[in-house]
Amino acid sequence: MSTIILKGNIIHTPSRTHFECIPHGYLVSENNQIQGIYTELPEQYKNIPVQDYKDRLIIPGLCDMHVHAPQFVYRGLGLDLQLMDWLNHYAFPTEARFQDLSYARIYYEAFADAMAKNGTSRAVIFGTLHAPATELLMEILEQKKIAAYVGKINMDTLSPDYLCETPEGSLAATEQWILDTKDRFHYVQPAITPRFIPTCSSEVLKGLGELASKYDLHIHSHISEDLGEMGIVRERYPQYDNDGEVYDHFGLLNDKTVMAHFIYPTDRELELMKQRGVTIAHCPQSNGNVAAGIPPIRRMLDMGIKVGLGSDIAGGYSICILRAMADAVYLSKLKWLESKKQDSFLTIPEVFYLGTKGGGQFFGKVGSFEPGYELDAMVVDDSSLGTPADCLTLEERIERVIHLADDRNFTARYVAGEAAL
Amino acid sequence: MSTIILKGNIIHTPSRTHFECIPHGYLVSENNQIQGIYTELPEQYKNIPVQDYKDRLIIPGLCDMHVHAPQFVYRGLGLDLQLMDWLNHYAFPTEARFQDLSYARIYYEAFADAMAKNGTSRAVIFGTLHAPATELLMEILEQKKIAAYVGKINMDTLSPDYLCETPEGSLAATEQWILDTKDRFHYVQPAITPRFIPTCSSEVLKGLGELASKYDLHIHSHISEDLGEMGIVRERYPQYDNDGEVYDHFGLLNDKTVMAHFIYPTDRELELMKQRGVTIAHCPQSNGNVAAGIPPIRRMLDMGIKVGLGSDIAGGYSICILRAMADAVYLSKLKWLESKKQDSFLTIPEVFYLGTKGGGQFFGKVGSFEPGYELDAMVVDDSSLGTPADCLTLEERIERVIHLADDRNFTARYVAGEAAL
Repeated sequence: MSTIILKGNIIHTPSRTHFECIPHGYLVSENNQIQGIYTELPEQYKNIPVQDYKDRLIIPGLCDMHVHAPQFVYRGLGLDLQLMDWLNHYAFPTEARFQDLSYARIYYEAFADAMAKNGTSRAVIFGTLHAPATELLMEILEQKKIAAYVGKINMDTLSPDYLCETPEGSLAATEQWILDTKDRFHYVQPAITPRFIPTCSSEVLKGLGELASKYDLHIHSHISEDLGEMGIVRERYPQYDNDGEVYDHFGLLNDKTVMAHFIYPTDRELELMKQRGVTIAHCPQSNGNVAAGIPPIRRMLDMGIKVGLGSDIAGGYSICILRAMADAVYLSKLKWLESKKQDSFLTIPEVFYLGTKGGGQFFGKVGSFEPGYELDAMVVDDSSLGTPADCLTLEERIERVIHLADDRNFTARYVAGEAAL
Repeated sequence: MSTIILKGNIIHTPSRTHFECIPHGYLVSENNQIQGIYTELPEQYKNIPVQDYKDRLIIPGLCDMHVHAPQFVYRGLGLDLQLMDWLNHYAFPTEARFQDLSYARIYYEAFADAMAKNGTSRAVIFGTLHAPATELLMEILEQKKIAAYVGKINMDTLSPDYLCETPEGSLAATEQWILDTKDRFHYVQPAITPRFIPTCSSEVLKGLGELASKYDLHIHSHISEDLGEMGIVRERYPQYDNDGEVYDHFGLLNDKTVMAHFIYPTDRELELMKQRGVTIAHCPQSNGNVAAGIPPIRRMLDMGIKVGLGSDIAGGYSICILRAMADAVYLSKLKWLESKKQDSFLTIPEVFYLGTKGGGQFFGKVGSFEPGYELDAMVVDDSSLGTPADCLTLEERIERVIHLADDRNFTARYVAGEAAL
């Protein structure tokens, strides 16, 4: 029986509307199940050592619901290019290099280190179409204790010659990779990951739906991100109203699916996401960087659609989900203006919820400190951030962390019930 | 005769359209006048020591054209409040505390340190209405070698009781403060700084215009930032079409004026800014944070209006002008969408220009390494930012710095011809 007791200023969002803050509280976990938060330590734990983080903040681990690991190589570059130029100049040539495992090791190690240092405990990750490099990425994530769904991606059409599979080859390699990896790791699982509808033939989408069902796997892709992509899909599948219906037709939409962006959903598509229990990965930095637009997040939340946050490296350049929280508020204010003040903007507790419990539900009971949840926790030292902590409420301190903290402020991490730094 | 020779990868933007990059070049300054950039050191400098920064980047000092020093206390807080709630809860009560010089010293020191560490060599700064604290801020900036125009601000109407002057008191205190400070510093000068039109009576605006003229001072304020503020101005001055005409009436618009925001300019107001030679301080992070809107920067640039960048602490939470550059591109992409793809978005060289030479012209020949310019230079070590430098062009390296660097990457600074770190 492994019991962990953390002491500090405990902050989480059991509900979306407000923070629950317990100053100098005790967070107790037994065998990776949170037992409770206590202002005084219960009698039965008195003989167990307490990890005392003093005046630091203890928050749930951050969940990155959409990120391209190979694109970490060129994050922060090409940000004044249009999307297709950017893909052709940076994304595709870089991804092609991941055929080389020694190249892949260098950048996947750097990627996983950066995630861990920036407070992420869980992630849903695109690899490349190369099964060996993707399996290597999974090994590295396992070793660094980042709990993740990882995808060998599929692309067999509308892709550059040097980065394109055959339909049969794509499906065969995917199934072999699933068999090789699905029982190999403790923290990491394979996920079905079509790049997006334009680069996948209907044969591949159909086969991926069957593999997802056969092996009971999670699914990850992009949806309704920009008008160009959507135009291609409408032309190829004129019988369907929207991207969502195409994915659904191939058996790729259910409560184990996460879809990134969803900037231009139709009413029918919103309803479909809700019915299928799909999680939307909102990537606010990327939405602006690729000049795609602003998704109607308030509307999704009001409908009860599940939403988390993603860094979308390298459409986004920041790997820290705190930054995604800040950007989500910022972008929602521009949506508020765009909607003539109809769509109220997101609040600080709401974006914190999205970056923790909102994404965390995709992994089970994750992203909150309620009883029965797994212990993913980050310890944050905010003493370098300016005004002394005793002048601020805990709500103010976590808001300041969201806006001003960086990797220097994360001082300890726990993932799935184990210390991980 | 003081000669400084810096060696490294020299990057600047003599024109707005592209970077000029000189790998492993020599930048030579004599008595704070740049002589040139050389790939081989000219004979006459052979006996002068060279400061060799090896493979690091050498860029012009960054110019922050609009920032509220006292608001540094609460940066990163209240970012889901509406503007008036934020002013009443954070801005006004905090500013009132600057009556206390020991409080002011703590936060003004922290503010100036943060600016210096983040690559800023020049700034245009709001203080509070308190002359003693504002003079202290000027002393601190002088000591930290930040060249600045600093304002004791004026507010005698529509302000909270505890932070409001009488018209006569406001003008008398301003003139005394000008006399006390205008010849006292080497790097720092007083600037006429009405908070904005709503908080200044016409008597005060008239008096400030006269003081600006009498002492030949620079001028700094806010203009056409949001529809609420503009409504107050239209009601008070129905004879004028826009904020600009009101400032102009009081003699406050000329080529020594910088005005922040300018989100909702009228055509006449744009033309007026151009004719008067006013500099606009574009503060992209603040524009979103306070949900004000997106200014037509492309249109201003096409018209030949002068534009620089501002952090607008604490409407913005980031004090680094690199972040303002990144945010300016991001926001311009949303403007591009809003304008139905009419207003092309800003490029990386353009925002670099705005953050250096664009703002720098307000201070004289500043913000570029052309001959005759002052030597403001920052040395940037980008070796921690990922992909090895030898895989990237210098244009790519500076773009990556704009998006990923922070205070850790600035390793040396020169301001007005002197080493300053």
